[in-house]
Amino acid sequence: MVDPAVVKELIPYFTEFFGNPLSLHAFGRVAHTALEKARTQVASILKGDPAEIIFTAGGTEADNMAIKGIASQHTHKRKTTGPHIITSAIEHPAVRESCRYLESQGFSVAYLPVDRYGLVDPETLAATISKDTFLVSIMYANNEIGTIEPIREIGKITQSHEVLFHTDAVQAVGKTAIDVQKSHIDLLSLSSHKIYGPKGVGALYLREGIKLQPIVHGGGHERGMRSSTHNMPGIVGLGKACELAQTRIQKDTHALTKLRDQLIANVLKISESTLNGHPEKRLCNNAHFRFKGIEGESLLLTLDEKGIAVSTGSACSSTKTDVSHVLSAIGLSALEAQGSIRLTLGRKNTAEEMEYVATTLQQSVEKLRMISPLWSN
Amino acid sequence: MVDPAVVKELIPYFTEFFGNPLSLHAFGRVAHTALEKARTQVASILKGDPAEIIFTAGGTEADNMAIKGIASQHTHKRKTTGPHIITSAIEHPAVRESCRYLESQGFSVAYLPVDRYGLVDPETLAATISKDTFLVSIMYANNEIGTIEPIREIGKITQSHEVLFHTDAVQAVGKTAIDVQKSHIDLLSLSSHKIYGPKGVGALYLREGIKLQPIVHGGGHERGMRSSTHNMPGIVGLGKACELAQTRIQKDTHALTKLRDQLIANVLKISESTLNGHPEKRLCNNAHFRFKGIEGESLLLTLDEKGIAVSTGSACSSTKTDVSHVLSAIGLSALEAQGSIRLTLGRKNTAEEMEYVATTLQQSVEKLRMISPLWSN
Repeated sequence: MVDPAVVKELIPYFTEFFGNPLSLHAFGRVAHTALEKARTQVASILKGDPAEIIFTAGGTEADNMAIKGIASQHTHKRKTTGPHIITSAIEHPAVRESCRYLESQGFSVAYLPVDRYGLVDPETLAATISKDTFLVSIMYANNEIGTIEPIREIGKITQSHEVLFHTDAVQAVGKTAIDVQKSHIDLLSLSSHKIYGPKGVGALYLREGIKLQPIVHGGGHERGMRSSTHNMPGIVGLGKACELAQTRIQKDTHALTKLRDQLIANVLKISESTLNGHPEKRLCNNAHFRFKGIEGESLLLTLDEKGIAVSTGSACSSTKTDVSHVLSAIGLSALEAQGSIRLTLGRKNTAEEMEYVATTLQQSVEKLRMISPLWSN
Repeated sequence: MVDPAVVKELIPYFTEFFGNPLSLHAFGRVAHTALEKARTQVASILKGDPAEIIFTAGGTEADNMAIKGIASQHTHKRKTTGPHIITSAIEHPAVRESCRYLESQGFSVAYLPVDRYGLVDPETLAATISKDTFLVSIMYANNEIGTIEPIREIGKITQSHEVLFHTDAVQAVGKTAIDVQKSHIDLLSLSSHKIYGPKGVGALYLREGIKLQPIVHGGGHERGMRSSTHNMPGIVGLGKACELAQTRIQKDTHALTKLRDQLIANVLKISESTLNGHPEKRLCNNAHFRFKGIEGESLLLTLDEKGIAVSTGSACSSTKTDVSHVLSAIGLSALEAQGSIRLTLGRKNTAEEMEYVATTLQQSVEKLRMISPLWSN
């Protein structure tokens, strides 16, 4: 949910400060000031410069802009042989499908494997970069299993090879400290609604001096890189959400890690249960389990009746029945993947709720196993 | 500004109904119901089917999707000679720059001229369509001078030539009755903030059976045509704004036309003043004038001090100093174009305000002419 302080900040932009920041009159100037304040708030959480922030309609658009926008600068490379873009096998569909689209346009993409925890190996990345490579896109943290990638090592490698580095940091912002300078990140995508801001707004960090071809052409907003009348309530909300996230990051991370570890410890007491993803290098708000002999969707529905909202697969494709490409990539069988669920914690969750979830999960798993043809213990 | 009834409708989607409509749990189902209700509200104002509505981040994105998305289906035509796309010389930058981008990719675009009122000639359009043409994109009503194009005649021509017809209806929705069936419109762009809805949301009407290549790839939302977590408050707000606009269209149009004509009659009493655009075939909320010997930007600043917000050029590019391509296309000289301003009326405006604006305009024009090197009367 959106933080009430964020809602309070953005509401006046619907009816009171309704100007267009590009208008020259008084209404426009008020909006322009708010726009630039939000840009500063977003830049600050990344340790970037406000001039390096481009507002978008969300993380997905930012990912598309980064990957296709950079590829458009290298269309002359279409026919070369080495990988033009290197990404991982566990990226969010926004990155993955942008890469697939570029493959259909003649670009070559390498999808790096990950280990059983979901980690990319920096040495494999270094060995895969060729003279044709112009972009590496590796997510900061995985949206399903919560694994945090070795971003600083990856940044060192891309920098030394003079290849651009994009990271989808939608899941990581506000949950781990980000420094685009120290990590040598050239492009970074973020989304507002993952940090208690409103849906429908996000941003792309684009290092000064890097150009890309827009995917949305028009009036030339955002330094000509992304046209559209600015979504002022959304942008003001994203700015405030970044400010709050930056202020609260230590407190939030500490509290969520404690809750998460309590939940994991209790859930793993269920027989034949396993944690998916890395035990330590994981997002403070992510717990992902698999239960032998269980069908994840049945478990989701059972928990839903008890007021517990969980996901199977990723939230962005949870109505699809395909096996998650992330769970396949960490070596899970189709049965193991289908027996997996994701729990995401938030600022409002309590230790009592973690107890309730663990107990309810245990009861639900036992109940479902009693009627499961896959369970024979 | 956003209608307070719209704000009231969308606010619960920030903190109360914060689910993702693709999630299977209870929070998700509530969001899904709201999403489909909004889709029905948007379809209704166009006389389309809810399944033909794709939500976007605004009119600019809808225009880009329509034009580039259809062109991507015809990349094999790149090397043919006749015009692939036919548009007008007075389109919004979202259409114009999308076409320019496609020209850089090898497509051929014809930009139809307009008469001195800004009208496209249907016969010229018919004569321009070649066997290579796959798309006609003509705006419903112009965003600067307010001229309403002969959409029904254009639709007849595109239908008989079996060419797709897209119209940017951002300015027209809610101000003139639209019927995608009767007008044979295949694709139509609309924007929420032009009908008292929130900024940052819009929609593309895409006739059933027509496919396009997405410009934003990812999780496969919106029937695979536009990926991104749904902007639920924005979409709910757009739906409500469409519902209100549909209910109020006759009343609003009648009231605004009366105010507009009052304003035009009084402003034209100023010596050497001219109405830009068509006297009758124009948006009920648009008045656009030029004043001999006046610099529009000085007039804007003078009026701003008196609490009157006007535009020079279009709102989307009003911080640029180039001469408007629309005013050039209707035959205005650079001096005439620079001496032009646009006034846009809204539901809240009153007859007293129209009197105030006309009087203030007269005083401001007289004052500026006294110091104008361009004025020698």
